[in-house]
Amino acid sequence: MSNFMMAAIEEALKGLDEGGIPIGSVLVHKDNIIGRGHNRRVQKNSVILHAEMDALENAGRLTAATYRDCVLYTTLSPCPMCSGAILLYGIPKIVIGENQTFMGSESLLKANNLEVIVENNKECIEIMQRFIREHPDLWNEDIGK
Amino acid sequence: MSNFMMAAIEEALKGLDEGGIPIGSVLVHKDNIIGRGHNRRVQKNSVILHAEMDALENAGRLTAATYRDCVLYTTLSPCPMCSGAILLYGIPKIVIGENQTFMGSESLLKANNLEVIVENNKECIEIMQRFIREHPDLWNEDIGK
Repeated sequence: MSNFMMAAIEEALKGLDEGGIPIGSVLVHKDNIIGRGHNRRVQKNSVILHAEMDALENAGRLTAATYRDCVLYTTLSPCPMCSGAILLYGIPKIVIGENQTFMGSESLLKANNLEVIVENNKECIEIMQRFIREHPDLWNEDIGK
Repeated sequence: MSNFMMAAIEEALKGLDEGGIPIGSVLVHKDNIIGRGHNRRVQKNSVILHAEMDALENAGRLTAATYRDCVLYTTLSPCPMCSGAILLYGIPKIVIGENQTFMGSESLLKANNLEVIVENNKECIEIMQRFIREHPDLWNEDIGK
């Protein structure tokens, strides 16, 4: 596992410690983390701060050229909203911790010529599956179900 | 023009008064506005608070059943991020002020069986075209160009 996926998992666990949904993400520019984030639905009563959105927001306002040199790491397959944000900013590559618990809009990303790597990392899967068992309502709310 | 599109335009003009990008949106549930928003890139240095995202965030945490009875009004055709958020929450109908200045992901919404109505409202077009003439850099930043 890369250090960047480890950083995304750290973010997910930080969210869990805060009583939130354990999904984490980091935005990496030329091998440097420039934005970190985790799902803040519970913590901020937010319907838009998924992990990837939080990482993008925390990275701040960037030029299109900067986004084009970025890789986004996320512990879970990105939902339609986060996939749309990735497309909006032209981020060319996504590394996904796992897509067994939830399959996001990977086909849309691939159809737009993004590089999509799925690790199916054991730790990512365990964190999400345990959370969903214990908090099915929160999880369903987070994916609009 | 409906009262709801007028409310979305009011939001856009509020954004303009604040020095921001003049795009507004309202989320309507059974003929009541339950969320209002406008683009806050400049005001909050936000890369995720497009008008539609701001309206969804301000509406707060809702059940899936509530979203399914909503209509989202927006002064401008929704970008991939906002369209993804609309899909995530299963909002079934979108009313768009105009798509002449910017064509968002309307085809993706239609492919997912959403009802998409485009008004091509003269006031919406004039507000955006004037803003883009005066602030091309801000506009390009907002659409990842």
